[in-house]
Amino acid sequence: MTSIKTDRKGNRSVGVHRFSENPLLTPRDIEPHRRDFEVLGAFNAGVAIYQNEILLLLRVAERPVQPDQRLIRVPVWDVAREALSVETLHNEHGEYDVSDPRSVVSKVTGRFAYLSSLSYLRMARSRDGIHFTVDADPFMFPATAYETFGIEDPRITQIEDEYFITYTSVSPFGVSVSLAVTRDFQTVRRLGVIFPPENKDVVIFPEKIGNQYFALHRPVPGEIGGPEIWIADSPDLVHWGNHTHLLGVRSGRWDSRRLGAGAVPLRTKAGWLEVYHAADKQGRYALGAVLLDLVDPRQVLARSSHPLLAPEMPYELNGFYGNVVFTCGTAIKEDILHIYYGVADSAMAGAKISLSEVLSSLSTI
Amino acid sequence: MTSIKTDRKGNRSVGVHRFSENPLLTPRDIEPHRRDFEVLGAFNAGVAIYQNEILLLLRVAERPVQPDQRLIRVPVWDVAREALSVETLHNEHGEYDVSDPRSVVSKVTGRFAYLSSLSYLRMARSRDGIHFTVDADPFMFPATAYETFGIEDPRITQIEDEYFITYTSVSPFGVSVSLAVTRDFQTVRRLGVIFPPENKDVVIFPEKIGNQYFALHRPVPGEIGGPEIWIADSPDLVHWGNHTHLLGVRSGRWDSRRLGAGAVPLRTKAGWLEVYHAADKQGRYALGAVLLDLVDPRQVLARSSHPLLAPEMPYELNGFYGNVVFTCGTAIKEDILHIYYGVADSAMAGAKISLSEVLSSLSTI
Repeated sequence: MTSIKTDRKGNRSVGVHRFSENPLLTPRDIEPHRRDFEVLGAFNAGVAIYQNEILLLLRVAERPVQPDQRLIRVPVWDVAREALSVETLHNEHGEYDVSDPRSVVSKVTGRFAYLSSLSYLRMARSRDGIHFTVDADPFMFPATAYETFGIEDPRITQIEDEYFITYTSVSPFGVSVSLAVTRDFQTVRRLGVIFPPENKDVVIFPEKIGNQYFALHRPVPGEIGGPEIWIADSPDLVHWGNHTHLLGVRSGRWDSRRLGAGAVPLRTKAGWLEVYHAADKQGRYALGAVLLDLVDPRQVLARSSHPLLAPEMPYELNGFYGNVVFTCGTAIKEDILHIYYGVADSAMAGAKISLSEVLSSLSTI
Repeated sequence: MTSIKTDRKGNRSVGVHRFSENPLLTPRDIEPHRRDFEVLGAFNAGVAIYQNEILLLLRVAERPVQPDQRLIRVPVWDVAREALSVETLHNEHGEYDVSDPRSVVSKVTGRFAYLSSLSYLRMARSRDGIHFTVDADPFMFPATAYETFGIEDPRITQIEDEYFITYTSVSPFGVSVSLAVTRDFQTVRRLGVIFPPENKDVVIFPEKIGNQYFALHRPVPGEIGGPEIWIADSPDLVHWGNHTHLLGVRSGRWDSRRLGAGAVPLRTKAGWLEVYHAADKQGRYALGAVLLDLVDPRQVLARSSHPLLAPEMPYELNGFYGNVVFTCGTAIKEDILHIYYGVADSAMAGAKISLSEVLSSLSTI
């Protein structure tokens, strides 16, 4: 039985079955890492399967409690002190623009000054993939000069018995992408900045193709170009080259404004399936898929004409930053793709979708 | 005899001896590569020594002749046709902003639309380092999807008997940095995009340090961070990682606004000497130097408090884009550093400076 529907224009939509337990994890499920902080979000989790458990490596965003409206208290990792510092900004006369809840912009310079919250990575573990237990302590906390404003949006790629974690590292130096590796999800080793600013949304393929590793990345050029998906290769996962542009925005479609890789690419018979996110001109973040050639992943074979998953439910439409679904990882069981996804920069949700339906829904380019 | 001068504040300035023959090469010395084009600039040349000649690999900027003021004719490399195409923009009603002579900005989108000229690389050869003969044909012309708006600002690093050329590649995908290699300065082989957008000003060190190659690069982050110098390493010159921030702007100084690597780093007893360019808040582009540790080039040892060379001469102050000195390469003879530098985005000039004076002029950090 198929749940593909065809609308009057002949567009096929794929049946998406959101978990009835959604949202799976919310800020209320998380104790802040210290008492004078509050949890704003637990979202955009990387996904791994380890020792018969499904792991969600959550991005947890916390901010200092704000007892005085005339002040803005912002969190910054202090590299020299190796401690989290809370800085106090005087906003008596509206010196700062906080209209975007994610950042504090100086009205003097017109430029970004601070993130309003600090993100770090925290593990949630589950036997059934639905009910998760959150670790008491952070799994990774900012620790370097490239992470002073936080670490975000992890993706986990298993290669043999190692798990490689790519994550966004944010500091006054810019938004870069860093790599870390773990074997046991207890200890983790940092491998440095692998993509300099401005970049985000890096996913590493789970095996070598030919003689090289591959990754998707999403540079944000300044004057020329836009936030689109590139592909690069590497002999060792640390050094990356042969950068080529892979996937661009499409005018008038669901991915018209910006896009970036989402889940770790999944090997299928038809090709590498990549579930990616995109925003349209109205700022709606949705999920779709692109199919890449198995032998040459720089070749795009097919792509979603319409989103597989778009914000519809209240927990997707409303939150810290609403109208957003955003995935950092999936899990496959036979033909069923389990998409774990952040909602409204606030919480985690899950959905099931038939892999064969996804594949047959894609339009050749 | 030293020509270091000390001013009232104790700042030392270094004696710079501009070539009396300056400018060495100007647009008038260059035939356009086709008759309906005009040469706007011959500048920012990479430098190599090959078979007893000094080579200047010029960035030559050309634009189509503009017979009708209501139209703007812009050059674009057409990848599919493998030919240069001239597109005509209708500007009867001032649809485009051309106040910056380097680019054409759409008033509809408010965004960059085209470069006003197309740059390519052309060789000039000299026995004495002063009088140059320009090759009749381009050495490298745009040829890939990443070069459709031109290729710019080459640096040449000799490693054994190969010469590696880094250059800025500009296209609608953004401003990236590409690598090519030659052994004979007749044929050249492209090695792809080594730094994705937005990046510029990449110089490769002339030997391995430890077990890795090193390069300086200059990302241009978007929202957070500024155009500053980073350093990365590589096992093979194609794949780059371990990106760290190296050198930032300094408020109130000659390098207060933006900076980028200039010449290929020079090994001295005191450390790696890098002559870099920087702009101040007034937009003046000057040259100074930074000294990096020989064993660990990520360590900054000393830096110019004041420019070694700042625009003073008419050919530096006036031109296509004035008040600019900008180097892509030097040549060393005993203690004398010969700095070849672009002036006003128009022409090439040269200056001599004592290496030991430069080294003693640097301030420890």
